[in-house]
Formats: sequence, C-alpha cells, structure tokens
Amino acid sequence: SFRSYVASVGFVREGRSKYDMRKVIHSIKVGIALVLVSLLYLVDPLYNEVGKNAMWAIMTVVVLFEFFAGATLSKGINRGIGTILGGALGCIAAVLAQQIGGVGNSVLVGISIFIFGAAATYSRLIPSIKIRYDYGSMIFILTFTLVVVSGLRAEQVMDVARQRLATIGMGFGICIFTSLLVFPNWASDELHVSMATKLEHVASSIEGCLEEYFMSGSDKEKQGSNSCKNCKSVLHSKSKDEMLANFARWEPWHGKFGFSYPWNKYLQIGENLRELAVTVVSLRSCLESPRQPTKDLREPMREPCRAVVSTLSWALNELRESIMKMKKFQGGPEVLPKLKAVRVELTLLTAQVGALQKDEELAVVSFV
Amino acid sequence: SFRSYVASVGFVREGRSKYDMRKVIHSIKVGIALVLVSLLYLVDPLYNEVGKNAMWAIMTVVVLFEFFAGATLSKGINRGIGTILGGALGCIAAVLAQQIGGVGNSVLVGISIFIFGAAATYSRLIPSIKIRYDYGSMIFILTFTLVVVSGLRAEQVMDVARQRLATIGMGFGICIFTSLLVFPNWASDELHVSMATKLEHVASSIEGCLEEYFMSGSDKEKQGSNSCKNCKSVLHSKSKDEMLANFARWEPWHGKFGFSYPWNKYLQIGENLRELAVTVVSLRSCLESPRQPTKDLREPMREPCRAVVSTLSWALNELRESIMKMKKFQGGPEVLPKLKAVRVELTLLTAQVGALQKDEELAVVSFV
Repeated sequence: SFRSYVASVGFVREGRSKYDMRKVIHSIKVGIALVLVSLLYLVDPLYNEVGKNAMWAIMTVVVLFEFFAGATLSKGINRGIGTILGGALGCIAAVLAQQIGGVGNSVLVGISIFIFGAAATYSRLIPSIKIRYDYGSMIFILTFTLVVVSGLRAEQVMDVARQRLATIGMGFGICIFTSLLVFPNWASDELHVSMATKLEHVASSIEGCLEEYFMSGSDKEKQGSNSCKNCKSVLHSKSKDEMLANFARWEPWHGKFGFSYPWNKYLQIGENLRELAVTVVSLRSCLESPRQPTKDLREPMREPCRAVVSTLSWALNELRESIMKMKKFQGGPEVLPKLKAVRVELTLLTAQVGALQKDEELAVVSFV
Repeated sequence: SFRSYVASVGFVREGRSKYDMRKVIHSIKVGIALVLVSLLYLVDPLYNEVGKNAMWAIMTVVVLFEFFAGATLSKGINRGIGTILGGALGCIAAVLAQQIGGVGNSVLVGISIFIFGAAATYSRLIPSIKIRYDYGSMIFILTFTLVVVSGLRAEQVMDVARQRLATIGMGFGICIFTSLLVFPNWASDELHVSMATKLEHVASSIEGCLEEYFMSGSDKEKQGSNSCKNCKSVLHSKSKDEMLANFARWEPWHGKFGFSYPWNKYLQIGENLRELAVTVVSLRSCLESPRQPTKDLREPMREPCRAVVSTLSWALNELRESIMKMKKFQGGPEVLPKLKAVRVELTLLTAQVGALQKDEELAVVSFV
C-alpha cells in the first residue's frame, strides 16, 4: 500500500503539472486571440471596413474567453442571444417612443428602461435562470439600454446595431477558433478525470485510516492529515462538480463523449462519493477518540479489517479504472459477498468497531 | 419539540419571504440606477457635456451592480484599478510604439498586447488572485488593449482615456449611491444570519434523529428527509460562506460590524459546523441501518439520549442566540459536565449506540 501511496502522489503531481501546463497554454491562447482581434485595428484594410466598432470585437474576446471551452461557448451563446433580444426590443421601444416625440419620448424611454431592467434583473436572481443564462440577461439589459437611449440621438439605430452585432460576431468567431480548435480545455474531460481522482482519494483515505489505526503511536500525526485533506476535498467538491457539469453540457461532441452524454450521472456519482467521504471522515474521528480498545483487543481485528479495506479499495480502484476506460464495472457480484463475510466475522469479534465498519459497508453497498 | 419544529419552519419561511422581498427591492434599485444613468443621454445639457462616452457609464452600471453591496464595491474598485493601470500602461506602450513608427509600430503593439494579455490571463488563474482581483485583471486586459490599439488611430489617446475614466466614475458613483445608501443588501448581514440558521439546522436535525429513532415505524420517512436536507445544506455551504466572507471584507463599517471585523472566525465556525453536520449525517445513517436493537433494548436508552439531545440542542440554540445578539457564549462550563455525565450513563447501558453518541459529543466538545 506504500506503492499505492506513491502512485497516488505521482498521479496528483502529474495532474498538477498538467494543469499548470494547461494554464500556460490557456494564457498563450488568450494572447493569440487578442493579437488576432487587434488586427482589426492594426491592418488598414480591415480597419477601413469595421472602423471604431472594432472595439466591440476586442471587448467580446476579452470578456468571453474562459478557461474551459464549454464556458466560452455558453458565454458566447448567451451574449449572442442577449444582444439580439435586447437589440430587437430596444429598437421596437425606440421606434415606439419616437412616434410620440417631445418630452413624452424621453419619459417613455425612461419607463421602458426601468421596467425591462428591473424584470431582467429579477430573472437573474431566479436560481434556474442564474445557473445558465445569468450572463445573457446582463447583456440583454446592457444592449436594450444602449439601443433605446441611442435611438434618441442617432438616426440610424438599425445600422449601428447591425454593425455592432457583426463585430461581436467576429470576436466570438475568434474566441471559438482559438478556444475550441487549438488545444481545447474541455470541462467534460476535467469532470471525467475529477471523478476518477475522487474515487482514488476516497480509497487512499480508507487505507490511510486502517494504517493509522494499527500504527504504533508515534508516526500517527504525520500521515493522517494528508489523507484526511483529500477526503475533505471530496466532501467540498459539490459546487465545482456542478459548475463543470454545467459547462460540459454546452460542449459539442468531441473525443469519447457523444451527444446527450449523461452528465447528471456524474453528479449522482459525485453525490454518492461525498456521502462515502462523510462516512470515512466520521469513521476517522471515531477511531481518533480517546476511548480506544487496548492493543491486545485490536490485534485480532487487524486481519478482517485489512480484508475489508483491501476489498473496498480494490472495488473503488476498479470503479476508477472502469470510469477511465468507460467500461461497465463487473466487480459488483464479487465484492458484496466478500464484504458480507468479513462483516459477520467482525461482528463476532467485537460489537463496537464492527458497527462502524458496517456503516461504511452500507455506504458502499448503496453505492454499488 | 414540535414547537421548535414549527418555530424553525416559521423562521425559514420568514427568511425566504424576506429574501424574496430583497430580490424585488434589488431589481427596483437596478431599474432606478439604470434610469439615473440614462439621464446622461436623456437630458440635453448632460449629453452635451459627456457625449457618446455616456455609453461607458451605462455599461459600468449594468456590469457593476450586484446583489450584495460588498460585491458591487469589490467589482467597482477592481474596475477602477484595472482601468487606471491598464490605461496608464497602454498609454506608455502606445507612446513608445509611436516613437518607432512605420510597420515596427504595429508589430510592437501586437507584441505588447500578446505579452500583457497572456501575463494578466495567467495571473487570473492563480487562486489567491482569482478570488479577489479576477475582475480587475480582466478590465486591465480590456483597457490596455483598447488604449494601445486606439493609440494607433486617435491622436488624443490621453483625452479619450480621461473622458472614459470620468464616465466610468459617474457610473460607479450611481452604483454606489443606489447600492450602498438605499436599502443596502449587506453580505455581512447575510453571513451573520446564515451562521445562526446553520446552528438551528444542525440542532433541529439532531432532534429529528432522536425522534425518528424512537418513533413507531410508520411516520419515519415523512419527517426524516426534511431535517436531513437541512443538515446537508449545512454540509455544502462552504463555497457560499467563502463568497460571502469575501464580499463582507470589502464592505465598509455599518451597523453592528466595525472595521476589521473578524470574518475569518465565521469561516472557522462554519468549518466546525460542517464537521458536526458530517457527524450528524453519519449518525443518522447508522441509526437507519437494518441491524437495530429491539424495542425493549431501546427503551432504557430513551431518557439519557433525550438528555444528550436536549442539552446539545439547548447549547446550539444558545450559541445561535449569542451570535445573533453578539454576546459571549456563557454556557460552556455548564454543558460539558452534563454531557460527560450522560456519556458515562450511556456507556454503562450499551456499548454500541454509546459509541456513536460519544462521537457526536466529541465533535461538540471540540466545537465548544
């Protein structure tokens, strides 16, 4: 199990350096996208075409370019829809207001800004809309207000809106090109790998529990904190998982993930793993409590405990493998009888620790 | 304890309707801010003053206005610093590039955009910067790029930058006015109250555990899910707490919170409460396991268990009170001996359930 510890450290370190590499690549990609979009200013023929509106393309690139491809796509689509909707409604409101003319014009513009602004802001506070369309609503408010007030000053609102939309489209195109086609960072890959890492973390901290419990006092504190930290990181992974799944849903077909890939299953697995992590953390605190059986009492439990833990961590690592290779997990029928047999053995040995181990098993049983 | 249940439901419902009211107020405030900033367009003397740059003020209001006052402030300060830094560096780069002239000018501009864009993007991926200055870095990239490319086309870069900054300042002023001075939503209040709610959730789910355990089978499933959900919401509150504490740090002195108020302590309390919630959730799953003592065996445990639970929930509710009233919690010396006495009693009665209860106590002891 020392080997597995080294392996897990290796895995984490490899994961981290990969992640850092990805950060560097992402930064370079943003730099390239910025230079590309600046060409609209730098190259004379292009500038003569788009003029000052090139500003909107630059703004689009800076604001849209996110770390994960899915985030960029979702923001881009939100921005597009928000701009079109806001622009269309803004034009209608501006035209209507112009029909009235005079002071009534300004008053009507003010009222429409208040109503649409407040309504769209309220929609941003509704959780289901907030998760997916928050950015779109903001852009809607922005575009609507800008178009409706420019309607008062500029004669050709439609023309301004069309040009602005075109430059935003250019910015979006550059974002999509650099984000999705050149070394893409898929949120789906991240979510996929994070599940495997979580399984590994839980398995290693179950092993850590066992080793610590049967360890001879002195080295206890060193190792414990590490495996506990891993377990806690699993415990607090909910919001990150949800964010990744949200981005993953926006990402197009690529690699091993097909259309309508069941991202919700990942969230369910994550939920189960967090429950298992709860059990492991509380098992650990039970084992650390001051009222412990003496060493003589512990000794006979060592073998069955080891059997439980090795079966569990074997099962978890198999699950990890099967997730990574995207195969169905076959071990279920093998694991359950083994665990049940050891449970009976443990129950005979001692009531107290057995109760705790059983609980852990239960979680696994419900998990498999 | 039925009364406490009703009270807790009432508390939650009151909290929710208050929250909805706050959402409506927030939406109206945004509407008002938008109308105020539109006056720059709508009123002729103002428009003659600022001209087309009024667009930047509108953009600032739409982008900056967040639900919590602290979030608006932090975004506003970020935007200000990012704009000033990006503008200053952009001006320097533009002037340097103009010294060279010709094609070298454009090349130098492109290179500087790439370097600064990539560097600032990388800084956004460093966690400690991401939490606080993410938005500022983005605005830095945006302003730098816009200023440096406009330097190629417009003669008076400085003038454009100055005007733009002035209108951004106006937008920020309107945001601050409507966000902080009119019915402010303080993130600090939210964090403060959420701690109290969490304590209440944990207390009520401990009570729920007890009632369910000694309940006669049939009604079990109805009530359980609710108190368990509360407990899980405590479990997954980490990211929300951190967000609120982050905003709260930006908020100025107001109400009962002074300067340099110890927001970190709230995070620590939250951490401890989450650990307690872990224990409660796993206690619940232990109590729900199929292998249970018969009813005759349970009966003698009823009283001591009730004593533990009532002491615990009393202590938690006292803690809640003391947080709400911001007084020091005095009950510590009373609670500990009580719990210890009951623990001894329980240990004598039965080993198994005692082990679980003990664990819970431990958490509380470490908490107090």
